Amino acid sequence: MSDTNTMIGRRSIYRVRVGYVDTDQAQVVHHSTYFRWLEQARVELLREGGLEYRSWEAATRLGLPLVDASIRYVQPCRFDDIVIVETHIGALARTALRFDSTMTIEGRNGTIVTQAQIRLACVHLETGPRRVPEEVLRACGGDDYASHLVRHAQTRLTLSSS
Amino acid sequence: MSDTNTMIGRRSIYRVRVGYVDTDQAQVVHHSTYFRWLEQARVELLREGGLEYRSWEAATRLGLPLVDASIRYVQPCRFDDIVIVETHIGALARTALRFDSTMTIEGRNGTIVTQAQIRLACVHLETGPRRVPEEVLRACGGDDYASHLVRHAQTRLTLSSS
Amino acid sequence: MSDTNTMIGRRSIYRVRVGYVDTDQAQVVHHSTYFRWLEQARVELLREGGLEYRSWEAATRLGLPLVDASIRYVQPCRFDDIVIVETHIGALARTALRFDSTMTIEGRNGTIVTQAQIRLACVHLETGPRRVPEEVLRACGGDDYASHLVRHAQTRLTLSSS
Amino acid sequence: MSDTNTMIGRRSIYRVRVGYVDTDQAQVVHHSTYFRWLEQARVELLREGGLEYRSWEAATRLGLPLVDASIRYVQPCRFDDIVIVETHIGALARTALRFDSTMTIEGRNGTIVTQAQIRLACVHLETGPRRVPEEVLRACGGDDYASHLVRHAQTRLTLSSS
Repeated sequence: MSDTNTMIGRRSIYRVRVGYVDTDQAQVVHHSTYFRWLEQARVELLREGGLEYRSWEAATRLGLPLVDASIRYVQPCRFDDIVIVETHIGALARTALRFDSTMTIEGRNGTIVTQAQIRLACVHLETGPRRVPEEVLRACGGDDYASHLVRHAQTRLTLSSS
Repeated sequence: MSDTNTMIGRRSIYRVRVGYVDTDQAQVVHHSTYFRWLEQARVELLREGGLEYRSWEAATRLGLPLVDASIRYVQPCRFDDIVIVETHIGALARTALRFDSTMTIEGRNGTIVTQAQIRLACVHLETGPRRVPEEVLRACGGDDYASHLVRHAQTRLTLSSS
Repeated sequence: MSDTNTMIGRRSIYRVRVGYVDTDQAQVVHHSTYFRWLEQARVELLREGGLEYRSWEAATRLGLPLVDASIRYVQPCRFDDIVIVETHIGALARTALRFDSTMTIEGRNGTIVTQAQIRLACVHLETGPRRVPEEVLRACGGDDYASHLVRHAQTRLTLSSS
Repeated sequence: MSDTNTMIGRRSIYRVRVGYVDTDQAQVVHHSTYFRWLEQARVELLREGGLEYRSWEAATRLGLPLVDASIRYVQPCRFDDIVIVETHIGALARTALRFDSTMTIEGRNGTIVTQAQIRLACVHLETGPRRVPEEVLRACGGDDYASHLVRHAQTRLTLSSS
């Protein structure tokens, strides 16, 4: 990832135990499962920043759908592993947020399993695109979030050649 | 997508009806669901190219796990929509294959819903990385697959700024 | 199943190809996956009976949530099998509907894979329980649905001892 | 449930936070999701009883597939709820195990959300049915498991009429 040095706000850690249902017949975690964990990691990062997504969505009728996602699968995870999803805000703009996550497995000395960049925009659930509201920017970037604002929260995960 | 002009072999069409289970409380298809459809689209492209993944995997103990994936979410899909996943090989190398897909909704005049590039490598399910075998290259690239081979099947989905 | 003789209205057939994502590391379809297929089979039975669930839900704000479900797993399904879900209405009441399904695999001479009984009630999505409306009873039971109405649509799948 | 009084061995508690992906467009948890949680609750009950399912499966090539399942949906769960899955062994036989679970939501005074009975048998992953081995019976029933053995671990969840 070209920009692991960029980190805005706090780093959030979400731990999850791999279930049997998360595996496929290749005996590893199915590639779609990581998106479940990445999503929950974002919910927890926002909660730690003071924003409970459930009540915010209900009160504002706003949402944060994905604009794009890039993910690199480095090593497989297996049933019963404990996956550690470390997430931080990689870019913060008035039009989009980028969450950068690195997944490792507990007890494996930090060997990277998966890396992802996921970019979200803000929409009103009935009427369409909105700017990202201040309470979300603050939950992501801290009280001095304005100092971190960029014009575009581009996805920059460099997917190296194999 | 910067390289929609690159198309190797045939174009494959996979149609799927959106189920209730595929939606989330934002009333749209959950972003992880697209990976289910993209996977089935790859299975069907290979079948059309003469490779039945099930029997190939059983006979060779080889597999084609994901190396990386980039996806752009342009428009939402909804329950009961019929999604058309159009897939072609975007790059073909001895070490990796890249499947490029564009999803549209039936009856919507081709408005793009999602675009994805997914890169797969070859592994032996017990012993690790392998070169992509000829039967897979042929299923993807046709009988003249060798004329399409590149050195690296890089993922090049340009994720534009929001 | 104690009452396979009871069949109200038409028999509906839903065919689905098993995806890789549907399997788990025991190399068979995960037990939760069957509920995805059973749901889609109900949507198709209703459609064949003249009720498009999507537009009905949007127009009425009613829904048909599950009250209970019983499922018997007889034989496993595997990746790339074509599963045939045969569904009929087993019981029809003003308070609940029971869908009875039998799953077989194409090309296996009708060997039963799974049997399920699923009971649904009607709710208004904001305000709670409702009687099952006539358009739903008609879609399930045909124009003479009233002749099939029972007082209670009980689930009666006898789960035999092993 | 007709036999909530029957409890063999310890009671196990598994807590899980409802994710956004677990919901559907009716704004509640999709009915198939409960099977994910019930499965993990069984894995944890076995772990607490001294059996790590992952290493046991790898060492013995045995598995515990579902024979049948009955589930009653009483109240919906919603995004961000913390679900408490309380599981105990309801019946223990040499041919099958029955796990009985009751789900409630944290902070709701124990109002029951869902009840389930799930019966598992033992198979060798390559060769077919086996008796349930002693290490599994002990993990479920404790050191005096033999005193709890019945001839058939029947599923007895009485699915009441609506």
